[in-house]
Amino acid sequence: MDQAKHRLTAAVLVIGDEILSGRTQDVNIAAIARFLAPFGIDLYEARCVPDIEGEIVAAVNALRARYTYVFTTGGIGPTHDDITADSIGAAFGMPVEHHPEVMALLAARYAPGDFNERRQRMARVPKGGTLIRNPVSTAPGFQIENVFVLAGVPKIMQAMLEDVAPRLARGTPVKSLSITVRLPEGRIAQALAEIQLRHPALSIGSYPFFTMGGSMAEMRASVGTTLVVRGRDEADVEAAGIEIEAMIRSFGAVPERS
Amino acid sequence: MDQAKHRLTAAVLVIGDEILSGRTQDVNIAAIARFLAPFGIDLYEARCVPDIEGEIVAAVNALRARYTYVFTTGGIGPTHDDITADSIGAAFGMPVEHHPEVMALLAARYAPGDFNERRQRMARVPKGGTLIRNPVSTAPGFQIENVFVLAGVPKIMQAMLEDVAPRLARGTPVKSLSITVRLPEGRIAQALAEIQLRHPALSIGSYPFFTMGGSMAEMRASVGTTLVVRGRDEADVEAAGIEIEAMIRSFGAVPERS
Repeated sequence: MDQAKHRLTAAVLVIGDEILSGRTQDVNIAAIARFLAPFGIDLYEARCVPDIEGEIVAAVNALRARYTYVFTTGGIGPTHDDITADSIGAAFGMPVEHHPEVMALLAARYAPGDFNERRQRMARVPKGGTLIRNPVSTAPGFQIENVFVLAGVPKIMQAMLEDVAPRLARGTPVKSLSITVRLPEGRIAQALAEIQLRHPALSIGSYPFFTMGGSMAEMRASVGTTLVVRGRDEADVEAAGIEIEAMIRSFGAVPERS
Repeated sequence: MDQAKHRLTAAVLVIGDEILSGRTQDVNIAAIARFLAPFGIDLYEARCVPDIEGEIVAAVNALRARYTYVFTTGGIGPTHDDITADSIGAAFGMPVEHHPEVMALLAARYAPGDFNERRQRMARVPKGGTLIRNPVSTAPGFQIENVFVLAGVPKIMQAMLEDVAPRLARGTPVKSLSITVRLPEGRIAQALAEIQLRHPALSIGSYPFFTMGGSMAEMRASVGTTLVVRGRDEADVEAAGIEIEAMIRSFGAVPERS
């Protein structure tokens, strides 16, 4: 059986000039990755594009053809720079219409006269789209085929994911374990590569860390490496973990699971 | 003159499973965006891909053909999961060789016998690549054509950018101004769209904010919007700023430059 073929995958598309100008630090990619993990869905790619329709359309079409799910964040508010609904409509070749249910939801939210034409833009959904509930600020996201269109504000985005959860397929979650050691990664790199070779179905990542500043001796003392073993076969992950711990002890160091 | 054609653009390619698993929060995209701003180079796209050679090659080749510069982060250490040098070599169709200058630098850094085969991997550079100095932990990055290959650890990545700076072309930096107002963006959206129409060369972004929690009345009181005007013509940016301030006052609110 072709593993890759049967895997559940996802991509995130972050839409917004504010991310690419460095004004705003994206936190949605990591949040979506952590949200998807228990479903056994692998976040496989993320892209950030500016508020330009052609760029959004090209990215959505490339990603939705390739991955099980696509999550977009940003650009669904009432202002002129909120062009996500139109861009998704263009990507799917579908007209974008005022959704009657959203019109009613939003009309109820505003004082009479305050539900202006611009705010009505937040009710625009590509034909065939289903709504994603927004318990924070009312204006919903929407799903069209395998694409979930979410808000950019992290608290709203995360609340919307709760409504997305029941719609997702479930695969085998990745099991992972982390082992930290007070050795530079170059010391153990060869032994680690051999463990990786013996466990080809696992992904073993090596992440060095060191505290900056202080004397060179102090910096050396604060050097370490975190090894992260990830895979879908728990016994395989655990076996690799035990081999890594034995390997670390063979270097006279102490492995710490974290 | 075709503005887009003469613009200096850049893309960031973040390489690493740890970003896509949500284990590590990327901060390099925003740091590179802020670094590039004074050069007048626009960060136009960012992508995150896993530690898989085919994915890295495809992304590097797509991005380097399209943008003035590409910055990659991550995957240049000594361990088996550090496959960036090989992937960049494959993308350019160039062999990857032990660079004599890096071999000497690294040999001098380690105690005799400690400069093992795995650590020597950090000296591997695609043929034709020039080095990017690493004042933090010695092992350099490299440049090949318009692609800059940097470390993933943010402090090292940022230190490497200092050595990249003199190699970059300089365009007209974007001028920007921010105006914050204690009004929801839906109130001012129509008036703002009209200002954007009068200044087609500018990008005017509208970013709502609100403090979560508390009563509905407290939440309403903490609602606001930050408007960010960006463009290369300072007089145009300032003119739009003045129009936005007048517009805000016409709603009985107080604009605050930030």
